[in-house]
Amino acid sequence: MRLITVGSVAFDAIETPFGKTDKIVGGAGTFITLSASFFVKSQGIISVVGDDFPTDTLEFMNSRGINTSGIQIKEGEKTFFWSGKYHNDMNSRDTLITELNVLEHFDPIVPEAFSQADYVMLGNLTPQVQRQVIERMAKRPKLIAMDTMNFWMDIAMDDLRETISMVDVLIINDEEARQLSKEYSLLKASKIIRAMGPKILIIKKGEHGALLFHENHVFFAPALPLEEVFDPTGAGDTFAGGFMGYLAATDDISFENMKRAIIAGSALASFSVEKFGTTGLTEITESDMEKRMQQFVSLTNFEMNQLA
Amino acid sequence: MRLITVGSVAFDAIETPFGKTDKIVGGAGTFITLSASFFVKSQGIISVVGDDFPTDTLEFMNSRGINTSGIQIKEGEKTFFWSGKYHNDMNSRDTLITELNVLEHFDPIVPEAFSQADYVMLGNLTPQVQRQVIERMAKRPKLIAMDTMNFWMDIAMDDLRETISMVDVLIINDEEARQLSKEYSLLKASKIIRAMGPKILIIKKGEHGALLFHENHVFFAPALPLEEVFDPTGAGDTFAGGFMGYLAATDDISFENMKRAIIAGSALASFSVEKFGTTGLTEITESDMEKRMQQFVSLTNFEMNQLA
Repeated sequence: MRLITVGSVAFDAIETPFGKTDKIVGGAGTFITLSASFFVKSQGIISVVGDDFPTDTLEFMNSRGINTSGIQIKEGEKTFFWSGKYHNDMNSRDTLITELNVLEHFDPIVPEAFSQADYVMLGNLTPQVQRQVIERMAKRPKLIAMDTMNFWMDIAMDDLRETISMVDVLIINDEEARQLSKEYSLLKASKIIRAMGPKILIIKKGEHGALLFHENHVFFAPALPLEEVFDPTGAGDTFAGGFMGYLAATDDISFENMKRAIIAGSALASFSVEKFGTTGLTEITESDMEKRMQQFVSLTNFEMNQLA
Repeated sequence: MRLITVGSVAFDAIETPFGKTDKIVGGAGTFITLSASFFVKSQGIISVVGDDFPTDTLEFMNSRGINTSGIQIKEGEKTFFWSGKYHNDMNSRDTLITELNVLEHFDPIVPEAFSQADYVMLGNLTPQVQRQVIERMAKRPKLIAMDTMNFWMDIAMDDLRETISMVDVLIINDEEARQLSKEYSLLKASKIIRAMGPKILIIKKGEHGALLFHENHVFFAPALPLEEVFDPTGAGDTFAGGFMGYLAATDDISFENMKRAIIAGSALASFSVEKFGTTGLTEITESDMEKRMQQFVSLTNFEMNQLA
């Protein structure tokens, strides 16, 4: 198994200016693995749900090559639930409800079959749970990437710094990069954050694209301009899943290949935001995805001539 | 003469979190022509100043191949003056003082030597003055580009729409595009705005780069990530000047060449914001500028492989 992800498998209820859902399937782990499944044909997920979680979702994940034996199903308990409402500009949102439920005492189990994986993606969870997954692998993976959020910077900075120091790639958004580094300039922030441990930093800027930093190299990928952004939930996780899925499938962690992985993640994220929940990811084919990656080529590609 | 620009030549007093200036030379026309001078060796500017404007600035412009015979010097009157203060994030600012002075009754004169130019850049001014310049050319130029701002949308929309309908390229920022089109999605906005006349639309997003729309093509250029943004004043004008200067110098208005022109504008804008006023533009050499254009290549360039 090439890629292992730890992340929430959850219910979301979402309200946007375009509509409203009841409880639908969401969660970082769900978006990451579904996204990665466009590239990697055998992967594992580590998570926890209650007995209220639909088995057909787990079966669908299995059909996409996602081994769900690392998802603990807690009898008599309820699945993590988040509800949020997006503002008109879709760039900010209010959390209406957070019910941790099974996530509150999540003790991640790494199945034997997962423990030799070369690629590990740590979805946004407590820094302690993320660290436990690293420690429970049979060997140090080739590449560990992690996501996190400002919440952990506010309440568990020391713990967070410890986990950050153990990973190769940190994937956070611009606000989080500024909070973590205490620097407004993302270029300066990138240096401070990489001094904390991760050799590679990805700063997500939502509709404004993403930056990849490694040594003295910077790469920028735009977000695809879209007619409608319907539901941004899971866009960042979809991006991370596409990025890690592409790297794991190609097993090439050169900077040149990371650029392609960023484009893969951006392409999948652009589908994700066009529909509610995971629908944008489950409706498309690999051919749709490859076409969209080509759109990024025409969006950004130019030939520099000798100047007049 | 290849390129003619109409735009303010003015004094600015600027306060940013990094420092504060007394009255320094600024104005859209100044930034546009200085920026264009990196590419086009003979150009003209149409503007108006008071007798308080320093002749050595005009001489410096002449030394850069900028013909200033279209700048009227009004005896006993004062040059346009703007003063502003930037907020900590450098993305928003408050205007402290606006003294129109000579600009209040500006009646643009197009010298005979300017009237056959193929490329015309209309800097941000009243839509009426912009239109007068078009009407006073001896022939319809090959490419007319214009900048404008939300202020004219608020107080002179009909007048503005008339001028917009006469140009080939409209260069505005994202907020202005949303206000003009009444659409939040920039992709949708771009269609509505191009239906108003301009075949080509450039939407500037400040530190988030710029989008170029033409027919069903979209091109995106990022802004260069910088350690310090010292003074954003004139960045948009510098961008427009680099864009038009590059097009005029190469005399090629294909979409492929417009992409390069956008990169040229972005490179020059990145220098402009690193210093107060026009200093960022006057201190650099053509070699600095070419190196920076190459940085955009490495920032955005990637090779798409066949997927695994």
